[in-house]
Amino acid sequence: MSRRRMLAGAGAAGTGLVAGGLGGYFGRGAAERPRSPAAGIAGDSTSTVSFYGEHQAGIATPAQDRLAFGSLNVVAGATRSDLRELLRQWTTAAARMTAGKLVGDVTTPYAPPVDTGEAVGSPVSRLTITIGFGPALFDGRFGLATRKPAALAQLPPLPNEDLDPDYAGGDLCIQACSDDPLVAFHAVRNLARIGMGIVEHNWMELGFGRTSTTATSQQTPRNLLGFKDGTRNIRAEQTSLMNDYVWVGRETDQPWLRGGSYLVARKIRIFVESWDRDYLQDQEHVIGRAKISGAPLSGGTEFTAPDFRATGPGGQPAIPGDAHIRLASFEHNNGTRILRRGYSFTDGIDPQAGTLLGGLLFIAFMKSPAQFVRLQTALAADALNEYTQHTGSAVFACPPGLRPGQQFGDALFS
Amino acid sequence: MSRRRMLAGAGAAGTGLVAGGLGGYFGRGAAERPRSPAAGIAGDSTSTVSFYGEHQAGIATPAQDRLAFGSLNVVAGATRSDLRELLRQWTTAAARMTAGKLVGDVTTPYAPPVDTGEAVGSPVSRLTITIGFGPALFDGRFGLATRKPAALAQLPPLPNEDLDPDYAGGDLCIQACSDDPLVAFHAVRNLARIGMGIVEHNWMELGFGRTSTTATSQQTPRNLLGFKDGTRNIRAEQTSLMNDYVWVGRETDQPWLRGGSYLVARKIRIFVESWDRDYLQDQEHVIGRAKISGAPLSGGTEFTAPDFRATGPGGQPAIPGDAHIRLASFEHNNGTRILRRGYSFTDGIDPQAGTLLGGLLFIAFMKSPAQFVRLQTALAADALNEYTQHTGSAVFACPPGLRPGQQFGDALFS
Repeated sequence: MSRRRMLAGAGAAGTGLVAGGLGGYFGRGAAERPRSPAAGIAGDSTSTVSFYGEHQAGIATPAQDRLAFGSLNVVAGATRSDLRELLRQWTTAAARMTAGKLVGDVTTPYAPPVDTGEAVGSPVSRLTITIGFGPALFDGRFGLATRKPAALAQLPPLPNEDLDPDYAGGDLCIQACSDDPLVAFHAVRNLARIGMGIVEHNWMELGFGRTSTTATSQQTPRNLLGFKDGTRNIRAEQTSLMNDYVWVGRETDQPWLRGGSYLVARKIRIFVESWDRDYLQDQEHVIGRAKISGAPLSGGTEFTAPDFRATGPGGQPAIPGDAHIRLASFEHNNGTRILRRGYSFTDGIDPQAGTLLGGLLFIAFMKSPAQFVRLQTALAADALNEYTQHTGSAVFACPPGLRPGQQFGDALFS
Repeated sequence: MSRRRMLAGAGAAGTGLVAGGLGGYFGRGAAERPRSPAAGIAGDSTSTVSFYGEHQAGIATPAQDRLAFGSLNVVAGATRSDLRELLRQWTTAAARMTAGKLVGDVTTPYAPPVDTGEAVGSPVSRLTITIGFGPALFDGRFGLATRKPAALAQLPPLPNEDLDPDYAGGDLCIQACSDDPLVAFHAVRNLARIGMGIVEHNWMELGFGRTSTTATSQQTPRNLLGFKDGTRNIRAEQTSLMNDYVWVGRETDQPWLRGGSYLVARKIRIFVESWDRDYLQDQEHVIGRAKISGAPLSGGTEFTAPDFRATGPGGQPAIPGDAHIRLASFEHNNGTRILRRGYSFTDGIDPQAGTLLGGLLFIAFMKSPAQFVRLQTALAADALNEYTQHTGSAVFACPPGLRPGQQFGDALFS
C-alpha cells in the first residue's frame, strides 16, 4: 500500500547483503544457541524433518512442542489455475522453510522482502508443514467436483458441540508444527501471504502444549485438565496401526488421496474454573486415570492397559461406565482408533464472564472421518462433557507426500 | 460446582501418591528431556531463577522465551483483609512455583487438587513471577488512597492509540515468564485460581517471541516486523542505567515502592499485511536499520551506535528524520531510557476483515511512567505508526523484591 518512501535514496548501508551472506538459512543462530541433541527421540531441535516422503510430514512425525494452525478460504473470483499455481508456490515455499531456508529474497531494496523475516536466526526446530483440502474446495468452483472423496464432508451434528462460525471449516488448511512457535507462526504467515489475492485467512490458532505421540522415550505431556494426554495414542512407529487407521489406502474412491490422511480439527473449550473446583477423585473418575501417575484406575502404571472389567472395593467398575478413557477406547468402539496430535490453546479471557478461554485444539489424523464420528458419538455419555464443549470444527483431506519435483495439486488436478 | 461423583468409592488405585512421591517438583522430567546448559547466558532452561532478592525477578532477569501476562480486577465486595490475604497466598505460591514446586497438595481424594497439574513433569524453565498494582487499587476501596504513588496514574491519551476496553488496565498484574509457555500459563492460571472470589480475570495474553535484554551473548530475536528487537535496550548488567532509569529510588513519595519499578504494558497491533507489501528499503527507512543485519542505516554492524547526523549519498539523513530508532532514541529524548521486555503475540484472525491479529505485547519497566509518556509522545511522528496501532494499555507499580518470610503487601499495608 504505502510506497511513500520509495523515492528516497539508495540507502546502501542498509541493503548490502546478498542471500549468500545469510547462509539462506533460518538456523544460523544454532551455533550461538545450542540445544541438546539428547532431547528425546525427537532429536536435536535444530534439526530438520524431511519435507519429502511417501506421506506428508507432520502426521507420523513425533509431535513438536508448538503449533500454528491456519484455515484459509479461496476468495471469490479466484480460478482453477490460480489455485493450482498457489499450490505450486506453497510446495516450493514449504520445501524451503522446512529445510531451514527463507521463502525467498530479502535483499532487493525496491521490492517487498519475499520472506517476512521474523524467523531469521531461529533454528528450524523440526518444522513441518502439512497441507489439507476442505470439502468446500470440491464444490465446483475449481472444476474439482469429480475429484471429491466420498468420505470428505462436513461432519454431522455431534454431541457436546456449540460451534462458533468464526472457527468453522475452511477450503484449505496449513498445519505448521515446530519446537519454536515463532518458526511455526512464520510458516503460516508466509504461506498465507503468498496466497494474497487468492486465499484469505479463515481462522488461526497457536498451540502451546501437545498430545504425546512419542511416549516410548519421552514423558507424556499434560493438557489443561492437568492429566497426561496421549498415553494410549497410536505411535508413529506402529506401522500396522498407521496403515489400518491413519493412512488412506486402496479403499478410497479417489486415487489422488492414497497415502494421505484425513485431518479432523475440533476446538474444544475446557471450562477450567469448573474443572478446578472438582475433587481430585471426581476428576480421576471423569477421566478414568490417576491424575499424577496417569495409571488407569484399574491399576498398574501409566502404560498398563486399562482393565475395563475390573471392579473396585464396593463392586462398582474401577473405571466408571462414563469415564472418558472407557468411552473413547478402541475396545468400546469396535477397534476404532485415530492418531491424535492436538495442542493446548488459549484465547485469553472472556470479557463478559471473566473466565479463561482455553482448552484443546484437538487435531487427529485418520483413514476416514467416520472414525472420528464414531468416537465422538460414543462420547455423548462422556462424564467429561460437563467440563468441555466443542466450539470449532473442520475436516480436511491431506494429500500424500511428495517426491522432489512434485507439487501439491499435481495428482488432484491431473 | 459438580460434586456428583463425590460419593463414589475410594478409588485407591487413583490416589495412592503422596506429595513426596512427586519430588514435589515440576521438573522431574528434566532428566528425560535435557536442555543444553550452554544455551546462552540465560543458562540451563531447567534451572530456577531466585524468587527472592532486592528486586522482583522478571525485570532484570534475562528475558525468557515465553510469556503469560494476566491483568486482574478485585471483585465487588472484597475487603482490604481479603486483598492482603490474597497477596500473602500469592507470595507463597509464587515462591513455590518459581522453585519448581507444585502450588500444593494434589493427593487428597475428597478435595480439589491445590495445583491444577498441567505443569507436572515440565522443567521449571527459569520461571519468574512478577506482581504489580494498578492505579485503581488505590482508589479507596482498600484503604490504600494515602499509599498511592504520585506517579501511578492511568496514562494520558497518547499518539497512535485506539484502545480496546477489553485490554485496559487492571487492579493487579501477574507477569509470568518462562522458557516453557505451559509453565508460564500454569503460573497465571493458578494465581488467578487462588484468588477466586477476590479477583477475576480482566485480560490475559500469551507471548511467543521476545525482545532482547541479553544481547551480549545471544542473538537478538526478531519481532513480527521481521526486524531485530532490543539491540539498544538497557542491559540488565548495566547497573548504573538500571538505577538511573528502571528501579524506583528515593525520589518516590511512597517508601514501600523503593526498589520496585513501574510496568507499562501496551498491546500494539502490527498491520502485517500492509507491512509485508512494503518495499525492503522503505521498511528499513521506517525502522532506521538494515532488516537482516540490524545495523543502523548510518553504517557499521548491529551494535554500532547509530549516527543520527550521518548523511547519505544524496545529502539526506542516512537515518530518516521520522525513523523509529531516531525518535525512540535517548539522544532524541533528553537521555530518557526504559527497559523493554516485550513479546510477540497473536489473537488469530479478524473474522470480519480476514486479517491477522498480531503484534507486540510491549512491556517495559521504568523508574516512572513519565519516561514512557515522553517516548511515546515523541513517537507521534514515527513512520512506523502507519503500520501499527496501540490497542491495549495498562500501568502497574511493581513493589520491590522480598526476603524469605516477607510477603507481597507487607510494606504496602503496614
